[in-house]
Amino acid sequence: MGTAQQAIDSREEALRRDREDPLAAFRAEFLIPEEGIVYMDGNSLGRPPRAVLDSLEQVVRAGWGGRLIRAWTEGWMDVALSLGDRIGALLGAGAGQIAVADSTTVCFYKAAAAALDARPGRTEILTDPGNFPTDRYVLESLAEQRSLELRWLKPQDPTRGPSAREVADAVNERTALVSFTHVDYRSAAILDMAAITRAAHAAGAMTIWDLSHSVGAVAVELDAAGADLAVGCTYKYLCGGPGSPAFIYVRREHQAALRQPIWGWLGRSDPFAMEPGYEPVEGIRAFLSGTPPILAMHALGAGLELVERAGIERIRAKGIALTEYAIALADRWLADAAITIASPREAAGRGAHVALARADAASLCERLAARGVLADHRAPDVVRLGLSPLSTSFAEVWDALAALRELGLTR
Amino acid sequence: MGTAQQAIDSREEALRRDREDPLAAFRAEFLIPEEGIVYMDGNSLGRPPRAVLDSLEQVVRAGWGGRLIRAWTEGWMDVALSLGDRIGALLGAGAGQIAVADSTTVCFYKAAAAALDARPGRTEILTDPGNFPTDRYVLESLAEQRSLELRWLKPQDPTRGPSAREVADAVNERTALVSFTHVDYRSAAILDMAAITRAAHAAGAMTIWDLSHSVGAVAVELDAAGADLAVGCTYKYLCGGPGSPAFIYVRREHQAALRQPIWGWLGRSDPFAMEPGYEPVEGIRAFLSGTPPILAMHALGAGLELVERAGIERIRAKGIALTEYAIALADRWLADAAITIASPREAAGRGAHVALARADAASLCERLAARGVLADHRAPDVVRLGLSPLSTSFAEVWDALAALRELGLTR
Repeated sequence: MGTAQQAIDSREEALRRDREDPLAAFRAEFLIPEEGIVYMDGNSLGRPPRAVLDSLEQVVRAGWGGRLIRAWTEGWMDVALSLGDRIGALLGAGAGQIAVADSTTVCFYKAAAAALDARPGRTEILTDPGNFPTDRYVLESLAEQRSLELRWLKPQDPTRGPSAREVADAVNERTALVSFTHVDYRSAAILDMAAITRAAHAAGAMTIWDLSHSVGAVAVELDAAGADLAVGCTYKYLCGGPGSPAFIYVRREHQAALRQPIWGWLGRSDPFAMEPGYEPVEGIRAFLSGTPPILAMHALGAGLELVERAGIERIRAKGIALTEYAIALADRWLADAAITIASPREAAGRGAHVALARADAASLCERLAARGVLADHRAPDVVRLGLSPLSTSFAEVWDALAALRELGLTR
Repeated sequence: MGTAQQAIDSREEALRRDREDPLAAFRAEFLIPEEGIVYMDGNSLGRPPRAVLDSLEQVVRAGWGGRLIRAWTEGWMDVALSLGDRIGALLGAGAGQIAVADSTTVCFYKAAAAALDARPGRTEILTDPGNFPTDRYVLESLAEQRSLELRWLKPQDPTRGPSAREVADAVNERTALVSFTHVDYRSAAILDMAAITRAAHAAGAMTIWDLSHSVGAVAVELDAAGADLAVGCTYKYLCGGPGSPAFIYVRREHQAALRQPIWGWLGRSDPFAMEPGYEPVEGIRAFLSGTPPILAMHALGAGLELVERAGIERIRAKGIALTEYAIALADRWLADAAITIASPREAAGRGAHVALARADAASLCERLAARGVLADHRAPDVVRLGLSPLSTSFAEVWDALAALRELGLTR
């Protein structure tokens, strides 16, 4: 056993990595309680940026209280789109293609209904049984409402998720819509967005990408990949807060043709004219329905600003460093514990979390929680370690894996 | 001209009414800027309760920051329903029938889709061309998507809105759904919910009531009126903040049969099990779709608490006193200004705002704004004075009408 391998056992080594981390200073930008919880759930609910409090106080006092109804025409009407553009910059999406609105579920419903309308006569929707539940349920509802077949692509390697080859084999002239999550919520596998989109397009199908576990964690190139539609959530790596609004991407060249199903006043041209007859406004704004959630969007602005300051390249680099470190510690300490790495081992194929699999994962999470380590159980057998590059320290990763080691698990 | 009539001219009289107002102390519970805006738009965006700032700081620091992901199982999962029950108490709705969620538009879409599904084979939707735009647009979208006819009931007296007799004459065995706004957003006319619902039911149709201009302003008896479904917004008289979440009411005996169209994980039984196949959870929770907006719901809690403390009877009494006063001043000062009262004159038929009609209403609102009086223009010819019983003073009403008088309008 060499020195390098021994060094990794030491918490000092974790602290050294923190000292050398170019993003280390960002941790101080978050509200972190002193009790010292080891938080491995930043991909489920990102920690609150300190600036959220000022951001909320500002919008309550100056905007809501001070400008009152005038604030709508003095800027609020554009927040959904300006935040959308800023999120787009993290996702390789040019301006005017993303709106912040609703919940991920509602955005996904709008996107899926619009995509299906754009492929009349086609009878099938393709997704993965391991796709995130709410996406599956929405597709199920639309399949039932429109008498379509929901086809399940079971990937040969569930840890990797569907490959472009598997998608190419599964799509055909009946396929209306292909929808996957870009970074798998369990395994963290990154799907090949460009190749899968090409395979779907080759059969004439539309695509929707769920970017909930991608945005603010890994680089995405929506425009370059030819993506048609995408949605994502902002309370994970963007730290927008519990239940913060979601976003929807509609490729510019589709915007004139695609029509979302929930026609509301905020998606109509000249909404305050309140005229008879719905006419969608031009552009991505037509994907809005109701009144935008101004307070929640201002809270989101604070988290987004931290991601912008850090830059997605540095965030991605730290995400890789954190996950590599977690895997190295797991390999070193848990090899005899019947714990397997259920995430891709090569960094390029893995997002910013790590799945550790063991049959009693649910009880492991409870035992970890009792030791102050918060991680998510994902059924059936995954302990998910979510490593949020701006707020997770290497010391936290060490502490989490050390806590697992201390459970003394054996085969 | 008698003394009583002369007395009303005096601002002293307004101040006297404020001194005698049993709800006067509530004005201090709101963040009101010193610049002294005369705010006649509290029915468009209620002023911020002071307690909102504490409420948000508390949920950010203690909940989000302190409890992190654990907060979901420690209470957050129930906020949508507990707030719903509190709103229900203002609306004559027993517990377990209201959820806070989404925007009013999305809630209305869910309600309308569920209602239409419950009346298969019926081909018509009945509403009023003066209904609030987003409701009309949603009905238009569903009519188009389902090849139904959207029929417009043009009330004989637009200031009063549709009567039960007119509804009874318009519905038939083809009518699937009847939907109106309870308090008209322009005229403030209160429709006869119980009688119209009876008329709709007599033809076998479902009903949806929009309570956006009712909740927190007038007494509503959803259960007693036999209402099937209802929605409403919380940023008007409940002072939940710009774009605060909406609510949806589903009568208890319908809950097992009605199914909303946007199947998401938060409406599924055991959402965190993330199992295959959507099965709606029992009760009103099945009308949720995505992750609930926790920060926005906590902000709403602050406004709701003020309404609860004041009590809906006292709020309604002050709403009547304010609107009567506004009408009396208008009668006294604006009779020669070609301004007509476009709201019902008898208090029992009128909500908490007053519509003043004149052809140049749009420019009047601009001229008022230049004098620090904020009121809404509602096309084509209405200047709308929204009088929010907890934050509007009689002096503000006097100031608003005095500003109109000072414009020196003639016929």
